Amino acid sequence: MSEAIPYKIYLAEHEMPKEWYNVRADMKVKPAPLLHPQTHEPMTAEELESVFCKELVKQELDNDNRYIPIPQEIQDFYKMYRPSPLVRAYCLEKKLGTPAKIYYKFEGNNTSGSHKLNSAIAQAYYAKKQGLKGVTTETGAGQWGTALSMACSYFELDCKVFMVKCSYEQKPFRREVMRTYGAGVTPSPSETTEIGKRILERHPGTSGSLGCAISEAVEVATHSEGYRYVLGSVLNQVLLHQSVIGMETKTAMEKYGITPDIIIGCAGGGSNLGGLIAPFMGEQLRGEADYRFIAVEPASCPSLTRGRYAYDYCDTGMVCPLAKMYTLGSGFIPSASHAGGLRYHGMNSVLSELCDQGLLEACAVEQTSVFEAAEQFARIEGILPAPESSHAIRIAIDEAMKCKETGEEKTILFGLTGTGYFDMVAYEKFHNGEMSDYIPTDEELAAGFAGMPQI
Amino acid sequence: MSEAIPYKIYLAEHEMPKEWYNVRADMKVKPAPLLHPQTHEPMTAEELESVFCKELVKQELDNDNRYIPIPQEIQDFYKMYRPSPLVRAYCLEKKLGTPAKIYYKFEGNNTSGSHKLNSAIAQAYYAKKQGLKGVTTETGAGQWGTALSMACSYFELDCKVFMVKCSYEQKPFRREVMRTYGAGVTPSPSETTEIGKRILERHPGTSGSLGCAISEAVEVATHSEGYRYVLGSVLNQVLLHQSVIGMETKTAMEKYGITPDIIIGCAGGGSNLGGLIAPFMGEQLRGEADYRFIAVEPASCPSLTRGRYAYDYCDTGMVCPLAKMYTLGSGFIPSASHAGGLRYHGMNSVLSELCDQGLLEACAVEQTSVFEAAEQFARIEGILPAPESSHAIRIAIDEAMKCKETGEEKTILFGLTGTGYFDMVAYEKFHNGEMSDYIPTDEELAAGFAGMPQI
Repeated sequence: MSEAIPYKIYLAEHEMPKEWYNVRADMKVKPAPLLHPQTHEPMTAEELESVFCKELVKQELDNDNRYIPIPQEIQDFYKMYRPSPLVRAYCLEKKLGTPAKIYYKFEGNNTSGSHKLNSAIAQAYYAKKQGLKGVTTETGAGQWGTALSMACSYFELDCKVFMVKCSYEQKPFRREVMRTYGAGVTPSPSETTEIGKRILERHPGTSGSLGCAISEAVEVATHSEGYRYVLGSVLNQVLLHQSVIGMETKTAMEKYGITPDIIIGCAGGGSNLGGLIAPFMGEQLRGEADYRFIAVEPASCPSLTRGRYAYDYCDTGMVCPLAKMYTLGSGFIPSASHAGGLRYHGMNSVLSELCDQGLLEACAVEQTSVFEAAEQFARIEGILPAPESSHAIRIAIDEAMKCKETGEEKTILFGLTGTGYFDMVAYEKFHNGEMSDYIPTDEELAAGFAGMPQI
Repeated sequence: MSEAIPYKIYLAEHEMPKEWYNVRADMKVKPAPLLHPQTHEPMTAEELESVFCKELVKQELDNDNRYIPIPQEIQDFYKMYRPSPLVRAYCLEKKLGTPAKIYYKFEGNNTSGSHKLNSAIAQAYYAKKQGLKGVTTETGAGQWGTALSMACSYFELDCKVFMVKCSYEQKPFRREVMRTYGAGVTPSPSETTEIGKRILERHPGTSGSLGCAISEAVEVATHSEGYRYVLGSVLNQVLLHQSVIGMETKTAMEKYGITPDIIIGCAGGGSNLGGLIAPFMGEQLRGEADYRFIAVEPASCPSLTRGRYAYDYCDTGMVCPLAKMYTLGSGFIPSASHAGGLRYHGMNSVLSELCDQGLLEACAVEQTSVFEAAEQFARIEGILPAPESSHAIRIAIDEAMKCKETGEEKTILFGLTGTGYFDMVAYEKFHNGEMSDYIPTDEELAAGFAGMPQI
């Protein structure tokens, strides 16, 4: 065990990032612009500002500025739960008997339980600065809703969360955490919106979907004075805010002379993966380094490995702008047997473009093997990982075992996005051998593709 | 905001404690010895070793050695989740508008969710070193059971947890976390023990109690070859292990020239409070400092403020040794309306003796005011506290508000023992206004006292 590198590296406050890094500035081919859902013309800032906060629209469209200063108020909030530790997985390495050196950046040590807070606080800050009364959003499992509730509570903003009804009923704890932070939580679909009423009429007793919750949140934001809609993933602004993960990681690694060979992240909408790899990808794009980047997605929702790179709707209600991305079609719904998050049909545009250019590898893993890795990791490293994060653990362990075979001393870095305290129902299924590994058939994927716009 | 002191102080690995501090060594009047439940004679090491691990018995009876080296294996495990941060509550101070400086030592950043892991890993280590196959224990809410499961998994020891039946059914998540760590979890009372069968015969359909679970765990430990019983609080050995909290805190404070005026901890069995205050109390006992120590207990289970200082049974089954302590009588059962932990009828002997000597103040708080403090803290400091920990928050805020009145710039330190992720049912009751502040009547206390042994 090398004594030179501690188990956990925490940056001192003065070493913490003061700027976010915008990887788009270093991309030769920029991600494709957002298109208007009706006209299919590129969205203007003015159009976007009716839905999103002004400053966030600016960040969404900014392909040029490499560094964006982090406002002092956000830096102050970051100090409450950041820096997150960069952990050397000594115990895991020992147990695996691998010559590989494994590191993970752990984002779960805050009450939202994940990295989502990094963007939530930024979005709440800009909403407050714009003089808004509040924001609306949707949440599925509840991590994003929790993060946004915390951020809004800090800036004394109203927060209206539409929570997919089945989650609202199955995850009352998550709901109560949001209520603790003063958020209003409405099960979706609800009678409080036109679209909610329409859906309830058509599908009485429906347990809801993320797409429907998005539509309700957007409706309320655009019909209430002083409100805007905010989103926890997929958007470029979110990746920008999440770059704080990569910036901290890079500083910590440089401090100890560590250079990763492989950088691994789980990929749903792309917020964590994009944030973790951002500054490293920047070096790669500028020809200053040579890393291997791996996006890990669930085999049940394989946008990068089996999707199409094309313009698609971001929501099932088709009210949001169109984005060019790897997608399974906005009508694609992953099997109900899928336990974790990472259920989004598409992938952030920046990551999609990087993938298309061959700069980012992608692989898909089945959930039983993900939970095997999760349990192994929990027992050895003492952290109970979220199912989402465990996708990255799976591939990190696989890569470390390859090193064991070849004898290579590779340095592996992965993002551990959060904790699984609210995912014990999934763990229970795994323990009871009731977890299935359903993978969509080609026919099912074809049905999803069929609903895509022809652009 | 003072820039000199960071939001969070993390010790470097080389600054972490290498020894536990045994406060008994500095006490002029030592805590009274444990007595045999039948003979009422002081328990010998040999007698205790049939129930407890050999080395732990030695620590339990050690009133002389001031410092006990922390074995390297335990130090290595500590590195996985320690040092815990000493947090300067800048945000809380600002919101309260107090001139007081508030610090808290946060023990919740590990998967067990609390400080319990500090002793669990020590007890598992000594069990392994003794060549045992496994250990047995009881758990109520599940924090201790989770911590022990993690520790046993690390040392590859079998772990049999008897979980109070109502918790087993109401807290399936906790149960699954323990199963993730490979523990066997049995709802208590069970058909697997003689005492369990007897209780089920007498009280069919009972939802169990901690006292019954202890008796089952002790029975299995004493009737199975290679097993011993371990306990997460109340015992002196546990306070010894928990002194790592106080040792880290003291080192961190000294590094930045901080001297606390008031040190506050919640008190159930006393493990966290005893661990936090230990090295500070040592200075006090040696006449080197003058701190004010406050134990905060729930008004529903007020052992220190309304109990008697006398010999009593440690368990309702009356199979464990007798301890001299502040107690409400082993037959006392706190109102079912009490939401958090801190339900134990007695208090650790060391803390009881310090309290009796006037070195430790005690106060009792009602649960609605505790949850008010919890919610306020969660919103301002971003950490969702456990109900137990929130007892300390309540008094810390009250003391800070007194400073606001007087203008005194006191330095307040409190122990934040854990997170409340698995306590959302209690938070829900609070949000819905369904929380009651039941305080036991004098008659109810008299009934508890009536069952105490006459020693």
